[in-house]
Amino acid sequence: MRWIRYQYGGSNSYGIVEGDKVEQVSGDPFDGYNRTGHKLPLSAVQIRIPFEPRTFYAAGINYEEHVREAAALLGREPDLPEKADVGYRANNALIAHDEPIIIPKDATERVQYEGELVVVIGKRVKHVTEADAFDCILGYTVGNDVSERTWQAADRTMWRSKNADTFKPMGPWIETDANPADMQTTVRLNGDVVSQFATNNMIFGIAHYISEMTKYLTLFPGDMIWMGTDGATDNMKAGDVVEVDISGIGVLRNPIVMEE
Amino acid sequence: MRWIRYQYGGSNSYGIVEGDKVEQVSGDPFDGYNRTGHKLPLSAVQIRIPFEPRTFYAAGINYEEHVREAAALLGREPDLPEKADVGYRANNALIAHDEPIIIPKDATERVQYEGELVVVIGKRVKHVTEADAFDCILGYTVGNDVSERTWQAADRTMWRSKNADTFKPMGPWIETDANPADMQTTVRLNGDVVSQFATNNMIFGIAHYISEMTKYLTLFPGDMIWMGTDGATDNMKAGDVVEVDISGIGVLRNPIVMEE
Repeated sequence: MRWIRYQYGGSNSYGIVEGDKVEQVSGDPFDGYNRTGHKLPLSAVQIRIPFEPRTFYAAGINYEEHVREAAALLGREPDLPEKADVGYRANNALIAHDEPIIIPKDATERVQYEGELVVVIGKRVKHVTEADAFDCILGYTVGNDVSERTWQAADRTMWRSKNADTFKPMGPWIETDANPADMQTTVRLNGDVVSQFATNNMIFGIAHYISEMTKYLTLFPGDMIWMGTDGATDNMKAGDVVEVDISGIGVLRNPIVMEE
Repeated sequence: MRWIRYQYGGSNSYGIVEGDKVEQVSGDPFDGYNRTGHKLPLSAVQIRIPFEPRTFYAAGINYEEHVREAAALLGREPDLPEKADVGYRANNALIAHDEPIIIPKDATERVQYEGELVVVIGKRVKHVTEADAFDCILGYTVGNDVSERTWQAADRTMWRSKNADTFKPMGPWIETDANPADMQTTVRLNGDVVSQFATNNMIFGIAHYISEMTKYLTLFPGDMIWMGTDGATDNMKAGDVVEVDISGIGVLRNPIVMEE
């Protein structure tokens, strides 16, 4: 099932995507819903972020090649994480499919994409085993962990390097039937493939993260975990269009503009 | 005005505290409200966290003496922050006044208090000057940034050292008429004063933080910023009671228990 949130005629609704149609539902995927029978062409609605997360977790460094690429750029030895320590991002930065990533006026040219799998939590859980971890997952969506590398290196936290307004595109929808083991993540810049990797090739997998996290914290419906990115990343500039395509989920596309 | 959120007769409401009474309101302090005229003794209600924040910002290191104490413990030179880089905490960890701080089974003895002023945002703002920064503040409450120091040193992020369930007591209410320039923060452990400092003696003040943050991000009603703590901190153990008292706001009190 493919959950979308959209605006049509001035109001926001949840819907279920089937082919090129979206059927409006009352309620939402977390607390329950009813189909209304009212259908619209997908092309007629404005897609919103699939949900407003309760807590926005991010694995950060979670793919070996990305660690090696980042270390090489700094002339350092790669420093692989030893544990599934999770970080945070912030809701102010979220934008939907097709909305513009706005580069702040004083950013450097090093504003870069990071294509990421987003795990959407559907059940309240604590102390979950790895074997049971997938039971709390509602589905998956696509994220772009846009990063200003100069600020990332200069600041004590990642508050503006990764959480400036519009730096967290997410969408276009939540796919509940996808299997991470089968996914391929592809990033395209102006149509050219600039990054491609097996989505599940993580240092610490989804089940391990959920099991480790819930030793200490409760996961709630509407929480989400961004799972990190692999490989090298490159700069984006005003006028570019970036797409993150995860097979089995969909394509998240956003244009880049400069702050006025 | 003193905003409280409370449970009574099985449902949650906002109320306005006047002396030892609370008057129920419909609505909330962020989107508008009406007084109902229905009053209860404050002692008869169960206090909840004053609000569920939208984004939970934390200044982190923001008082000189705290930096010097922390450095001395590690045998290092103090490393004062050069900029108002803000960090994040997580909603799962929030508990209300009088609710227990639960020490995880595998925590070390180094579970410590940090008394902090909490700034509650009431208006949507971006690109705010320092001169105008206070206009977006609804009021102030009290926080205890409970920290497990062994995990804080060992982990790549502060996800469990500072965000384990129950590690973020907050309350008892939001005071809208307080002035940070006049406040004193006092922490008491089992009635003994263990920390005391001028609340406004920050490295980067409230107006500076808000001005810097809003160069890159939008602050929304219901966002909050925890402003950091000063001085040394010490261990808390099961059976202890910790109080954070900020003059002009109120006293946040929580008992400590062990996870079963």
